[in-house]
Amino acid sequence: MQFTSERRLDDGVLEREFTLGEIPGILWTPASAFPPAPLILLGHPPLGLHRMYSRLAGRARQAVADGFAAATIELPGSGDRPRWAAAEQARADLRRVMEAGEPVKDEIIDALILPLVEKSVPEWQTALDALLSLPGIGGPVGYSGGVISIGIRLAVVEPRIVAAGLFAGSFVPRVMFEEARRVSIPLHVLLQWDDEGNDRQAALDLFDAFGSEEKTLHANMGGHTGVPRFAGDDAARFFARHLK
Amino acid sequence: MQFTSERRLDDGVLEREFTLGEIPGILWTPASAFPPAPLILLGHPPLGLHRMYSRLAGRARQAVADGFAAATIELPGSGDRPRWAAAEQARADLRRVMEAGEPVKDEIIDALILPLVEKSVPEWQTALDALLSLPGIGGPVGYSGGVISIGIRLAVVEPRIVAAGLFAGSFVPRVMFEEARRVSIPLHVLLQWDDEGNDRQAALDLFDAFGSEEKTLHANMGGHTGVPRFAGDDAARFFARHLK
Repeated sequence: MQFTSERRLDDGVLEREFTLGEIPGILWTPASAFPPAPLILLGHPPLGLHRMYSRLAGRARQAVADGFAAATIELPGSGDRPRWAAAEQARADLRRVMEAGEPVKDEIIDALILPLVEKSVPEWQTALDALLSLPGIGGPVGYSGGVISIGIRLAVVEPRIVAAGLFAGSFVPRVMFEEARRVSIPLHVLLQWDDEGNDRQAALDLFDAFGSEEKTLHANMGGHTGVPRFAGDDAARFFARHLK
Repeated sequence: MQFTSERRLDDGVLEREFTLGEIPGILWTPASAFPPAPLILLGHPPLGLHRMYSRLAGRARQAVADGFAAATIELPGSGDRPRWAAAEQARADLRRVMEAGEPVKDEIIDALILPLVEKSVPEWQTALDALLSLPGIGGPVGYSGGVISIGIRLAVVEPRIVAAGLFAGSFVPRVMFEEARRVSIPLHVLLQWDDEGNDRQAALDLFDAFGSEEKTLHANMGGHTGVPRFAGDDAARFFARHLK
């Protein structure tokens, strides 16, 4: 892990860009490195870190204000990272059927999401190794938002992640419903009730499938990007309950 | 309204029993009557105030600790109040079909709930007149919990109630789904995902039906009485947002 830039934001938060091999990422930490802060990994849609920067930085600054460190990495195939043909094809297929108002078939969802899960989860784990070796960062670790299937896989395979806040707002391959049954960490699931790009019934079925003994669904009105302010506050309290 | 008893609880809360004509009730207020506190009406199932006392007092003391006054009244046909034959019949029918493991027919639900709504809502309104004339109680008013159909009707007909926290845990007559569309105040709806006595899909359909622009569903694991502590805290913050 190599830091490539460092700046102090107006609220005292230290923002550092880094690279982890080929993978760019950003780390936000409190003004002081002591005591070491619990870490929240910030998931995001595969639109590229630059395009997502202001929303990610907003979430990160809130997390730091709540006493956490926050970090994110570029997803495979996003930003300046190399594309792969199958993903480009799946994105083109998705655009086409959505513009035509046709239902999105399982094959498209699988082609879009499954390779992303396969490729990104080991990268998040490598990032975790590097981040947890830094002086200002302790455990435990939470995962928040982004592509929900990545969150599910991480919750299953990565024991350092002890709580996850998931956003039921993206396509979920059918095989992930089975994987969801193996999740056992506390979950806080956000659902935008009128999310135009999301199948509400599938989101409710997925919530039902999770194996966790503590799981909470917070459904609010509005579309994909209309999550109300108070819903963010609720998610912050969920992480405070489980990471502190 | 006539106070019949008064005692100071160990946390300084003033608990007063009252009668309003034939109707018994309980009022909990902060140690000091100034400034006047916003009021939360505590709904409850038709099991009688005495049987429900400890749970009601727990909710009331929390509400007072959060800066509210809290009050409740005995439901018609509960506690020492006179029964009516049709309600007794409906309760007996309900017991019979539930013991037999049969589905609960609409006619039973209607006979059980609709007269309760018709009779109790004007009583809550009369209680509101009396409570709001007391020196230590100001507006605005919230309604919390209990038979959800009573909450729906109150939200529609009583403009002094500006926010409602509802518990999706009781039978809902079909006509109330239509009435739910006319609700426009902010709602905080609690759903116990594995509530043995509650139809989860009906609860989700009811949430969908509510006309309110701000409505939030919080679903948690466990049965009817297993609402987790943090879910109560979330509801308290909902009332703080809307009544203060």
